[in-house]
Amino acid sequence: MKTSKEYKESLRKMRPNIYKFGELITDVTTNPATKRSIAGHAQIFDAAQKPEFKEILTTTSHFSGELISRYLSIVQGPEDMIANVRMKRLMFNLTGTCTGGRCVGFNAINAMWATTYEIDKEKGTDYHKRLQIWLQDAQKRDITLAGALTDAKGDRSKTPSQQCDPDLSLHIVEKRNNGIVVRGAKVMICGVAAANEIFVMPGTGYKEEDKDYAISFVIPRDIEHLTIIETRRTNDTREQEEGFDAAVENGGITQSYLLFEDVFVPNERIFMCGEYAYSLKAVMNFIAPYRAAIGGCVAGQGDVMVGAAALMARANGLSEKVFRDKLTQMTINNETTFGMGVAAGVLGTKHPSGVWIPNTLL
Amino acid sequence: MKTSKEYKESLRKMRPNIYKFGELITDVTTNPATKRSIAGHAQIFDAAQKPEFKEILTTTSHFSGELISRYLSIVQGPEDMIANVRMKRLMFNLTGTCTGGRCVGFNAINAMWATTYEIDKEKGTDYHKRLQIWLQDAQKRDITLAGALTDAKGDRSKTPSQQCDPDLSLHIVEKRNNGIVVRGAKVMICGVAAANEIFVMPGTGYKEEDKDYAISFVIPRDIEHLTIIETRRTNDTREQEEGFDAAVENGGITQSYLLFEDVFVPNERIFMCGEYAYSLKAVMNFIAPYRAAIGGCVAGQGDVMVGAAALMARANGLSEKVFRDKLTQMTINNETTFGMGVAAGVLGTKHPSGVWIPNTLL
Amino acid sequence: MKTSKEYKESLRKMRPNIYKFGELITDVTTNPATKRSIAGHAQIFDAAQKPEFKEILTTTSHFSGELISRYLSIVQGPEDMIANVRMKRLMFNLTGTCTGGRCVGFNAINAMWATTYEIDKEKGTDYHKRLQIWLQDAQKRDITLAGALTDAKGDRSKTPSQQCDPDLSLHIVEKRNNGIVVRGAKVMICGVAAANEIFVMPGTGYKEEDKDYAISFVIPRDIEHLTIIETRRTNDTREQEEGFDAAVENGGITQSYLLFEDVFVPNERIFMCGEYAYSLKAVMNFIAPYRAAIGGCVAGQGDVMVGAAALMARANGLSEKVFRDKLTQMTINNETTFGMGVAAGVLGTKHPSGVWIPNTLL
Amino acid sequence: MKTSKEYKESLRKMRPNIYKFGELITDVTTNPATKRSIAGHAQIFDAAQKPEFKEILTTTSHFSGELISRYLSIVQGPEDMIANVRMKRLMFNLTGTCTGGRCVGFNAINAMWATTYEIDKEKGTDYHKRLQIWLQDAQKRDITLAGALTDAKGDRSKTPSQQCDPDLSLHIVEKRNNGIVVRGAKVMICGVAAANEIFVMPGTGYKEEDKDYAISFVIPRDIEHLTIIETRRTNDTREQEEGFDAAVENGGITQSYLLFEDVFVPNERIFMCGEYAYSLKAVMNFIAPYRAAIGGCVAGQGDVMVGAAALMARANGLSEKVFRDKLTQMTINNETTFGMGVAAGVLGTKHPSGVWIPNTLL
Repeated sequence: MKTSKEYKESLRKMRPNIYKFGELITDVTTNPATKRSIAGHAQIFDAAQKPEFKEILTTTSHFSGELISRYLSIVQGPEDMIANVRMKRLMFNLTGTCTGGRCVGFNAINAMWATTYEIDKEKGTDYHKRLQIWLQDAQKRDITLAGALTDAKGDRSKTPSQQCDPDLSLHIVEKRNNGIVVRGAKVMICGVAAANEIFVMPGTGYKEEDKDYAISFVIPRDIEHLTIIETRRTNDTREQEEGFDAAVENGGITQSYLLFEDVFVPNERIFMCGEYAYSLKAVMNFIAPYRAAIGGCVAGQGDVMVGAAALMARANGLSEKVFRDKLTQMTINNETTFGMGVAAGVLGTKHPSGVWIPNTLL
Repeated sequence: MKTSKEYKESLRKMRPNIYKFGELITDVTTNPATKRSIAGHAQIFDAAQKPEFKEILTTTSHFSGELISRYLSIVQGPEDMIANVRMKRLMFNLTGTCTGGRCVGFNAINAMWATTYEIDKEKGTDYHKRLQIWLQDAQKRDITLAGALTDAKGDRSKTPSQQCDPDLSLHIVEKRNNGIVVRGAKVMICGVAAANEIFVMPGTGYKEEDKDYAISFVIPRDIEHLTIIETRRTNDTREQEEGFDAAVENGGITQSYLLFEDVFVPNERIFMCGEYAYSLKAVMNFIAPYRAAIGGCVAGQGDVMVGAAALMARANGLSEKVFRDKLTQMTINNETTFGMGVAAGVLGTKHPSGVWIPNTLL
Repeated sequence: MKTSKEYKESLRKMRPNIYKFGELITDVTTNPATKRSIAGHAQIFDAAQKPEFKEILTTTSHFSGELISRYLSIVQGPEDMIANVRMKRLMFNLTGTCTGGRCVGFNAINAMWATTYEIDKEKGTDYHKRLQIWLQDAQKRDITLAGALTDAKGDRSKTPSQQCDPDLSLHIVEKRNNGIVVRGAKVMICGVAAANEIFVMPGTGYKEEDKDYAISFVIPRDIEHLTIIETRRTNDTREQEEGFDAAVENGGITQSYLLFEDVFVPNERIFMCGEYAYSLKAVMNFIAPYRAAIGGCVAGQGDVMVGAAALMARANGLSEKVFRDKLTQMTINNETTFGMGVAAGVLGTKHPSGVWIPNTLL
Repeated sequence: MKTSKEYKESLRKMRPNIYKFGELITDVTTNPATKRSIAGHAQIFDAAQKPEFKEILTTTSHFSGELISRYLSIVQGPEDMIANVRMKRLMFNLTGTCTGGRCVGFNAINAMWATTYEIDKEKGTDYHKRLQIWLQDAQKRDITLAGALTDAKGDRSKTPSQQCDPDLSLHIVEKRNNGIVVRGAKVMICGVAAANEIFVMPGTGYKEEDKDYAISFVIPRDIEHLTIIETRRTNDTREQEEGFDAAVENGGITQSYLLFEDVFVPNERIFMCGEYAYSLKAVMNFIAPYRAAIGGCVAGQGDVMVGAAALMARANGLSEKVFRDKLTQMTINNETTFGMGVAAGVLGTKHPSGVWIPNTLL
């Protein structure tokens, strides 16, 4: 598995295609707009090698039996889901925020693992095989993987093909023998600057006339004709004015617009291509583990807030006792969210493809 | 395992020692004050033999490997806790109420399993061995077991020995070579009328001077010098006036005062006798699985209310859609309670005695 | 104004037409099923003569300028509404419960004061004049007045005339020169046993074919062909078994079914007779002050619960401090409900008839 | 009364003593850091002359009977409090935010009106007379008045005189025949840039040794030796980058640190000077109307959010019906807050000085 240094080097080797404030970011590991997100990811590479976190952050590949990042694994049972929920909470405890992006990529792998299995079985395609080959290789390369779901969409009372601008959602503009050319925008995509690759998922509500929008694939983040715009966010200019504490320097999150201007995706990286009837299923398979694991995220975020509240009390010469009721209520909320994530994870079912699908009601 | 018929016969053979409205109940299986609780228990004996409920209501004895009622089992891991939470919810779904009492007895067995293990280890006593022998036999006899925790207590700012009436809490009044004689009251005890035996637990907050109150043991419900008073409860006289639907006839709950007027308990049925320092631990060991499993109870109670709400809407010519928001909110509450019970159960730890202790924070 | 003794005498002179448990109640002031409700009403007659309560419980007649019970007054402005909300809260503080019934009668007078004014203006009828005459006389006689809104209704997806049983809602079965004959049932009617007269309101959702159901009038409680059945309620048989503390003896509430089996109502007591388009307005005019004043009721009920909680804590040797958070939350809920009632009352508008209509949004 | 043009001119004539981003603001009416707050205030001057808002925004002086801004009036009864609550809500409806500052000044006048009355009566001082003279003149000049309560404070377990830095709270450093010299900091003070004068209030928890901190007075905003630092706030640099819609341009809020470096205050503008025992009373007199009126502020803020939510739904092609439950819940919250403000305002008491003090429990 990669060290944090190797991880950072892997990012530096990539083609610069990310912009913020109208300017191209030449090195994501040092630019103020992206460096804290990468520092957060780097911490996870370090933590994965520490005995106290190893069990949560790593697992063994069901392909090879070798040690891999949990973020590149197939979730196979309740224990994996519990570890997943715990990992999300740990992220906040270590970095003060989420590792925005890796969890989306992780869930996209698992969602498409089940979905490609079903499409292949019913349509005779070979998407599942392609996903197996890519994933096995991704585990070996120990990549960081972001996930991209949300399209710009436009008027939500219409489907993608009914919009006045056909490029509001990502879609196929050309089919070639060896792949497809895609155009459109994915928006509000987290953690792209810290990612080596991006796993693209389809949206929902697609009908036959939207079939060119029913696509799923994985691409290098720096693929040709993909332009990434880091969005403005609260106080982003102040990051450039002021220094921060080490704790804050080592965690952060980014959000981007991905502009696909006729990006070519080769067949072996395509996992859905026009099977519009499966796009809802793909998204539901995504949501089940994502929402369960988010129980850990929200609890982790709450842990940070409980700690911050206690520190603020002390900084003003006040004992935490003054706020005991409020801190207790915050803790109850945290543990309820965490517990529900665990329960949804545990009370799941095994999909024929081998993936564990958490309980969607919980 | 017993049939429901054998279960009812076992109750009929017992000495009548239960009173309601000032009169002795000669047959608990037919008296309006108690029959519905027994009908509920009987349903469970029947259900345990049905394929769809068997996995939840029964398990294998870790002594003998034979099929036993889950209510007489040692909880050994997350799977047992999940089954426990589900069993509680199932009770409400089958009987419209809880089987009040059996779950207390079940938890008392497990709490004292761990507690006796610790006392023996530190004090050189043989309580754990006694419990093993009794439990193995209880499993064979397939008894129904109530549990009794709450003493009358009196002024809660004082310990039992400080009360003006020493009999407000149950205590030893005489020690003999072969056992102890106990006196006092246990109050608000559920499901006693439907039980073959009663497992007695100590209270908490005991100091050295309260050591005669630190007692745990198990007795037949009809033991000499034990008088049981079924408490008054809302609308209890109306049960005698009116007929009910079959659904209501087959489930019910009772609550009693247990008056111990110098009851003799033989040594082999005593599991704590003066070890006041362990009484808090015993209660905490009780609370951990009890509170986790109660997630299932409350959700089951909620299921009944959701169903009742939907039926009331229809009975007034109203569609459930009118109340969709409220029914949805009730369902969210139910599933949250259920999920938290499952999570607390799963995220537990293994006690050296072999019992699984759920997470007390959750 | 009447003394409590005169009030009780006025009830004893009435024709017995109230049943409970299948038996006719010969004296409502002594029968266990009704006496506590009457004792509560009697307390109010006494309190109205005490200086500390006089300002809340009485006001001056806008007809005569003489002192009258607030329950028989026209609400003319914000001050009257504030006094109304306070009066409702005081009822709970004095009797431990509401005076169930008088507030309904009070609101019915005010609702129909505005509604008759509008009908007369648009239809040329003389309902408002009739109401004035009756009310002036009622104030002089200082009667207790219950109000009856809810019909049995049946299938709520249908209007009264569409029900299979036309008598599910109260309606005209015969029109005579000097009055109407009505048949049907009003259900869940509070405080009838303690009332001298009953003010009947129409329901809502009436169409032209339901016009015989659009009726409002006032009748003596013991009018010929009216049978009143006190409903069963929780623990009502225990009232007959046990004695109560004085505090409990002096307050209570009753709920009845009113069975109109061809009751004749003379014209001078009829305030709506077929004007179906005004029935919704009548009910809305009722709801505006009723819901505002209920802020006082619910807060008064909460006061009783806060007091009960504090007493229970003390009775168990526990200081109220242990429950301070919960008592504080209960108080917040109480005062919020009370405050909203006051605000809705104050931010109202003056109806052309002189009645003050509280704000319905609040 | 001033026009908005005259108001802006009055600000331009003042000595520049406000800084932001380390630079002196030469014209507060045009500097991006302050201009939107002033535009909001200007709107109120315009609105006060429109018939539909006049009754809410203006009233008559109890000194002269002349028309004055409500922000410079003495609150004399329930009607004034209702108008006050409505005025706060109107501010949000007109400007999208509060007029931060004027309401603090308004409440300070009223709080000190009652407090100076009491001090004078008990101590024989002439503070109340001074306040009358100043207020009468302020009404004539139609000034905008900010209020300053919060000191920097430091360690909250200590009183001001116990802090290691005596200047953490504002205090007297020199007493002269004709006035006092004060030093220290007031922090988190709203709307100062838009104000002509600032009303200073004492803090609470003062003991005899803190008597130099028990001070109240009013000063011109541009008084010698007062330096004002506009605080950083979320996205404040983006205001300088981007243009805004007219709606956003015409409302805004500012928050400052006031650094008093030996400011001289003449006797006729001093309303408390060492009477430490009255500082808690002064603050409580402030809080009563401030908290009641804040019911209007929070509801107004909620109105803006309800409107924004509906607009966002439409902008995405979604009907508001999709979010009806949430919008309804937001509206319930709004009206509850508003109603409680009205109720607290109405259920108050008349202070002997003539000020109306709202109910503090509500």
